[in-house]
Amino acid sequence: MSPDLSPVEVSRDPRTGRSAPGPRATAPKELSELVAAAARDAAEVAATAPAERARRLAAVADALEERTEELAALADSETALGMERLRGEVGRAAAQLRFYGSVAAEGGWLDVRIDRAEATGVGELRRMNRPLGPVAVFGASNFPFAFGVAGHDTGSALAAGCPVLVKAHPAHPLLSARLGSVVSAALRRAGAPAGAFALVVGFEAGLALVDAPEVAAVAFTGSQSGGMALVERASRRPVPIPVFAEMGTVNPAVLTPSAASAGEDGEGTARAAEGFVASFTLGQGQYCTKPGLLLAPAGSGAAGAVAAALAEVRPGWLLTEGIAAAYRQGLEDLVKAGAEPAASVPAADGGFAASPTVLTAPAEALRAGSRLLEECFGPVALVVEYGDEAELRSVLGRLQPSLAAAVASAGADDPDLPWLVELLSRRAGRVVVDGWPTGVATSWAQQHGGPWPATSRPEATSVGAAALDRFTRPVAYQSVPPAALPEALRDDNPWGVPRRVDGVLEGADERRKA
Amino acid sequence: MSPDLSPVEVSRDPRTGRSAPGPRATAPKELSELVAAAARDAAEVAATAPAERARRLAAVADALEERTEELAALADSETALGMERLRGEVGRAAAQLRFYGSVAAEGGWLDVRIDRAEATGVGELRRMNRPLGPVAVFGASNFPFAFGVAGHDTGSALAAGCPVLVKAHPAHPLLSARLGSVVSAALRRAGAPAGAFALVVGFEAGLALVDAPEVAAVAFTGSQSGGMALVERASRRPVPIPVFAEMGTVNPAVLTPSAASAGEDGEGTARAAEGFVASFTLGQGQYCTKPGLLLAPAGSGAAGAVAAALAEVRPGWLLTEGIAAAYRQGLEDLVKAGAEPAASVPAADGGFAASPTVLTAPAEALRAGSRLLEECFGPVALVVEYGDEAELRSVLGRLQPSLAAAVASAGADDPDLPWLVELLSRRAGRVVVDGWPTGVATSWAQQHGGPWPATSRPEATSVGAAALDRFTRPVAYQSVPPAALPEALRDDNPWGVPRRVDGVLEGADERRKA
Repeated sequence: MSPDLSPVEVSRDPRTGRSAPGPRATAPKELSELVAAAARDAAEVAATAPAERARRLAAVADALEERTEELAALADSETALGMERLRGEVGRAAAQLRFYGSVAAEGGWLDVRIDRAEATGVGELRRMNRPLGPVAVFGASNFPFAFGVAGHDTGSALAAGCPVLVKAHPAHPLLSARLGSVVSAALRRAGAPAGAFALVVGFEAGLALVDAPEVAAVAFTGSQSGGMALVERASRRPVPIPVFAEMGTVNPAVLTPSAASAGEDGEGTARAAEGFVASFTLGQGQYCTKPGLLLAPAGSGAAGAVAAALAEVRPGWLLTEGIAAAYRQGLEDLVKAGAEPAASVPAADGGFAASPTVLTAPAEALRAGSRLLEECFGPVALVVEYGDEAELRSVLGRLQPSLAAAVASAGADDPDLPWLVELLSRRAGRVVVDGWPTGVATSWAQQHGGPWPATSRPEATSVGAAALDRFTRPVAYQSVPPAALPEALRDDNPWGVPRRVDGVLEGADERRKA
Repeated sequence: MSPDLSPVEVSRDPRTGRSAPGPRATAPKELSELVAAAARDAAEVAATAPAERARRLAAVADALEERTEELAALADSETALGMERLRGEVGRAAAQLRFYGSVAAEGGWLDVRIDRAEATGVGELRRMNRPLGPVAVFGASNFPFAFGVAGHDTGSALAAGCPVLVKAHPAHPLLSARLGSVVSAALRRAGAPAGAFALVVGFEAGLALVDAPEVAAVAFTGSQSGGMALVERASRRPVPIPVFAEMGTVNPAVLTPSAASAGEDGEGTARAAEGFVASFTLGQGQYCTKPGLLLAPAGSGAAGAVAAALAEVRPGWLLTEGIAAAYRQGLEDLVKAGAEPAASVPAADGGFAASPTVLTAPAEALRAGSRLLEECFGPVALVVEYGDEAELRSVLGRLQPSLAAAVASAGADDPDLPWLVELLSRRAGRVVVDGWPTGVATSWAQQHGGPWPATSRPEATSVGAAALDRFTRPVAYQSVPPAALPEALRDDNPWGVPRRVDGVLEGADERRKA
């Protein structure tokens, strides 16, 4: 197929369903050239000092913020997420890029270790994490900026010294193309080589990225079916590569008996219900951290309280026609699997509208193989009552592991907190007490991941400082003379990175520079 | 099949080929009980303070050293590796166990991070690495102690807080069974629960371990076919688990033009040839770090020098009948693929004897798909001449990536060192200058791993402090009150571990205790 005949992606307005022509799909020849450029420039990108990488990421952040109104409006036309949320998300994406730059510059992710010859008996050993090479990024539908073309995966891969090839998301192809131009231009102006970043468009181009011999890793955020398809495809390559797929499952929230009975007249339950509803309907329930299940004590009246809180929710539109159809089908399937509707808000008019809904089910319906244990993307949640601790333990043990889990407690002295936190920490990447999982901070201690099938790589995080680790591989240099060592490993430590010498961390205070 | 009818493994003497009855294979019911015990005690093992884990590992080390003569003699009867080497390996295995204990106690592997609420905006975040749970270990044939029942994988998994289930190696079943008893008894005496460690025997028991829902990870050291079979099997489980397979390929060694022409009358080449031969014939060439290929400048006379050095080598026996047969077949296949015999030492008499051999081949014969690019386990190496830097680069680019790569240089000023080290570091887990890869130190900066297919997990190491990392998964605790936090994350830091608070590493000096 010649480039001129490549099909055009379609942009849809979720509020009306109307179509507009999107960007042209990347033709095979063009894709090969982009991948070759990434491979060609990988060594230069890897050798760039982390402080310089930070400056480049900050330049991209600035370029996004300068175009906040334009970008948010374009995103709103393709996602219906609303201008306020989207303006905020541009700022959030910019802050993330600056954060990953600061993490790169700090250098702890390089994990530099030096063992002197006397300690090893076979010569001096110096070890560091090296960038893997070109990374293919498949962003999410639901965060067009924070997990999009210039989102967490792109920011952390560039920070780790890897070229990035992003696939445009079919839920927002025009925004993807625009972001691709903005990021490319900002990186070039900041001195990055042409191969440091590229956008590709189209389903076939995405598959070709996963297959390209030059691509060293894949980062994906999205559905379980999409993620597992990429994992499977990458494992069949002549040289398999890792796929860091953040897929998500049902994130449980537990209301403890003490919390439910706090206050007067069901006050404790009502407060938890309000927080739960606000969290599971945020962004029309299109969060991978949505709390999709509330486990509440029998007799707490939680289902009624949640239903009451739902009445305050304004309906909206889902991101795509496919997500809206899957949502309607999911509601039907949940009912077939034994759930009962407790309350719903009438859907908005037109387009990909959805009706926010609360269902209830008996605890025994949550059993292996039931649809009730699977995620339903969109503004729906299930309220389930448990009789006692034994039943609660049993239900929690039957759930799929998850990205996050939450406990609404009666405070630090709640007698159920220690065992609940311990149990949930074995089944989730993040355990939240007296908060809701939908707020994901980009910080040093964040963990946005979880046991399979919440992610394909439970040891990894796609948010926070440790996100860089996904895109590196350690190498040990034995008795290598100074002139042949990478800069990060030299005795004079020109990158100013933390080091472990003969097993002892060098004093952090003297090491840190401006 | 009832336990009494379980088949008996066979122990063979490599020097004579004679058979003796080995331990009984673990019956399915027995295996289920061992796995259930590991799962039952996993929480207790995980909660044990790292300093206590170190004491338990030291107790195992003491128990091994107290039985050095007995264990070495038993190992020699099943491996023919010789008493001197095997006595030394018992000491090495004991030192490894103590090292992993010290790494556990130091606590850096927990990667504790604390972000205060002001920094995250959503509440305090505390993150640490938690042990995965029961680990299945498949040790190596060629290091019955260092990579065996009480070897690197077992030591690092126990140090990380995981119960261990080891499969007895069919190349040394009697030794495996004896080591299993010694390790179990030492751990029990030191206070570990019964489920902390178990040995299982037999091929079917090994497969059942990989399939057991309670097993959280697999560590394997051995052949590419064995490792890939486990990777494939574990990926087909209802819940896939990671397989850390260290398989090995051909580790290249490069003699630079300056090194070859150093000294007078081919002195430089002769010195390198001696080191190369000593390294590739060590332990009858049964090292995954064996340098299987010497790339030498055309006209350096390297093939002749290597052939001359080979004459000093004493022949021995390979570990198993299967390895000996594969070695003879491998030599035939290498010749069919274009290699020519340059020198060999007559095989010893009887048993699984092997003839140490040097082959030569033209550089153009090293092409994709050729048998010459694949490992041949045993005392054989290939010497290949390159015409110039371009040809050397081309050959190195066609090799399989490897665990290690070596350069014999003319010293720190050798003009070829910088580019060679850089190129090799992209294709190996460890780059050695003016040394040989067969000496693998157990230290903080070690990296014993490499890109696929040298290992299944290029980001991992099976030797050195970072070996613990394989068996952990990070969890973030958001706004969790002190009483519900794991000890490692508490403000009073009872485990005395290094911490990163709001992104800043706490001063290393004050932190470290006795």
